[in-house]
Amino acid sequence: MRAAVMHGADDVRIETVPDPTLNDPTDAIVRVTRACICGSDLWPYASMEPSETGQSMSHEAIGVVEDVGPEVRTVRSGDLVVMPFAFSDGTCAFCHEGLHTACVHVGFFGNNGMNGAQAEALRVPFADGTLFKLPVGEDDALMPSLLTLADVLGTGHHAAVVAKVGPGKSVAVVGDGAVGLCGVIAAKRLGAEQIIIMGRHEARIALAREFGATDVVRERDKEGVERVLELAGGYGAHSVLECVGLEQSIETAIGIARPGGAVGRVGVPQGESIPVSGPAFFKNVTIGGGPAPVRAYIDELLPDILDGRIEPGRATTRKLVPRSADGEAA
Amino acid sequence: MRAAVMHGADDVRIETVPDPTLNDPTDAIVRVTRACICGSDLWPYASMEPSETGQSMSHEAIGVVEDVGPEVRTVRSGDLVVMPFAFSDGTCAFCHEGLHTACVHVGFFGNNGMNGAQAEALRVPFADGTLFKLPVGEDDALMPSLLTLADVLGTGHHAAVVAKVGPGKSVAVVGDGAVGLCGVIAAKRLGAEQIIIMGRHEARIALAREFGATDVVRERDKEGVERVLELAGGYGAHSVLECVGLEQSIETAIGIARPGGAVGRVGVPQGESIPVSGPAFFKNVTIGGGPAPVRAYIDELLPDILDGRIEPGRATTRKLVPRSADGEAA
Repeated sequence: MRAAVMHGADDVRIETVPDPTLNDPTDAIVRVTRACICGSDLWPYASMEPSETGQSMSHEAIGVVEDVGPEVRTVRSGDLVVMPFAFSDGTCAFCHEGLHTACVHVGFFGNNGMNGAQAEALRVPFADGTLFKLPVGEDDALMPSLLTLADVLGTGHHAAVVAKVGPGKSVAVVGDGAVGLCGVIAAKRLGAEQIIIMGRHEARIALAREFGATDVVRERDKEGVERVLELAGGYGAHSVLECVGLEQSIETAIGIARPGGAVGRVGVPQGESIPVSGPAFFKNVTIGGGPAPVRAYIDELLPDILDGRIEPGRATTRKLVPRSADGEAA
Repeated sequence: MRAAVMHGADDVRIETVPDPTLNDPTDAIVRVTRACICGSDLWPYASMEPSETGQSMSHEAIGVVEDVGPEVRTVRSGDLVVMPFAFSDGTCAFCHEGLHTACVHVGFFGNNGMNGAQAEALRVPFADGTLFKLPVGEDDALMPSLLTLADVLGTGHHAAVVAKVGPGKSVAVVGDGAVGLCGVIAAKRLGAEQIIIMGRHEARIALAREFGATDVVRERDKEGVERVLELAGGYGAHSVLECVGLEQSIETAIGIARPGGAVGRVGVPQGESIPVSGPAFFKNVTIGGGPAPVRAYIDELLPDILDGRIEPGRATTRKLVPRSADGEAA
């Protein structure tokens, strides 16, 4: 089959690789019908050391189950499923607590030799704990939004949950990428009264407004912090969603948090430290977050997509249709 | 009157200073009957730049109200009161939320020119929002424990609250000073199942055990982290109370936290940054805490002291009785 393999910075190749096979009795093979590229794929695309073997790419997919191992109980051949970016056994203490990304068997697709979703098919370990059966057909019009359940929507939601968004709260979202936009959707869903988005991409800002953002701050750093404080009653936002991952953006997030407020960070940290330890301390600001347990959030988020209450798929900027192996458009 | 004034590192003088006076209609004058020295007093004692005027010291006291301004409603002359380390107006949004240390009028005794409690008397701004009337006499045997309501007990409790201590949880306490010991008391009060104390002062460790610690880890850094992980089910503690404030101790706190766990830090941070941003992120560990709103916690903690259920005063290591001005023992 064909798969996208990253061999180094700026070096992605479409290669013919062996078809995936069932290795363990809890595996499933999924034929990928939709996959996407994540902001976190851009870090290795910018910096990956050259590699002969390369790394199969991508971790967000929807597909059709083609085969399952003998111990798989909850999905079967023909089921359309969403595949979260991490696999999890669904049975350990962490999965039971809803923190599937800390599963004792956790692994990440398209990482550390694990197969990725930019491929015709892939092997999914712990299929019962990982895959979620969708109640629609594979060409449903909701597909772009359903695909966000694999990562960006659940990730934006996680930032909002960790940042304790709730009715009447003021929320600030740092970053206007797909996760930031999903953070706006999540904040709105959870009842936020004010939603300030920090960003400067006009098309995304316009979408953020449609999703529920009440204010826009285009300034960055010190100026941006001052502007958010001003907008959020002088003291800052109760909840800050950090959707970038740079030390600079974390510093901004802490700077715009109200005393007693919370920062939910979901941007993969690119620095060694969380800056401004003292200012965070003296404001009693809580800093949490990490890889989102998106598997845990599907139950809550899926109905809103099916009912059309939220449209996170609109955050997807471009749709590509693969050509078949013989060169015809598929 | 006499007061202790710090003029620089290792330079504390007992001086004659003007008696405090009512400056604002919301002030009270309190004659100090008990005061103590905080771990945080040791930082300037080690590093303060020489100062001609000096800084009046200390921020934890019990005393008798001697006079009040015309707008003070809840305390009056003759009342025995506990004075939290920070003053707060009791009326702003933050005070109503229980975060008195973020009061819009907050200030800290013995800091930035504000008078301190190592004195015969002091001026207390916003007496209604700051002082708490005690239902005992000034020589009550419970005095050492009641004095901890001014700081260390409320501070240990804050660490436990922020670290989400609750029934059945495993708790680790980093630091065996007075705040760490009060953290053990707080964790026990809140129902923790396992309480691991990290420290190596034998007398304090013995007291921690009496207060409810179930395990002791004397190792530090990597060895200490491994030992705590081993004791706490292999994955670490649900709740970590960071009662030191060094980058090294914060790193330890993050290292011993269970995935999805929480660190409550109350040690005043001595470094610029919170280290190990990535490991904290990938474990979804929450880091919170700051100056404890001890005023808010007195209602909850006082009854346990009065009923003898907790004895935080035992964490006090030494009692000094001042001599009167003419040289006689008071």
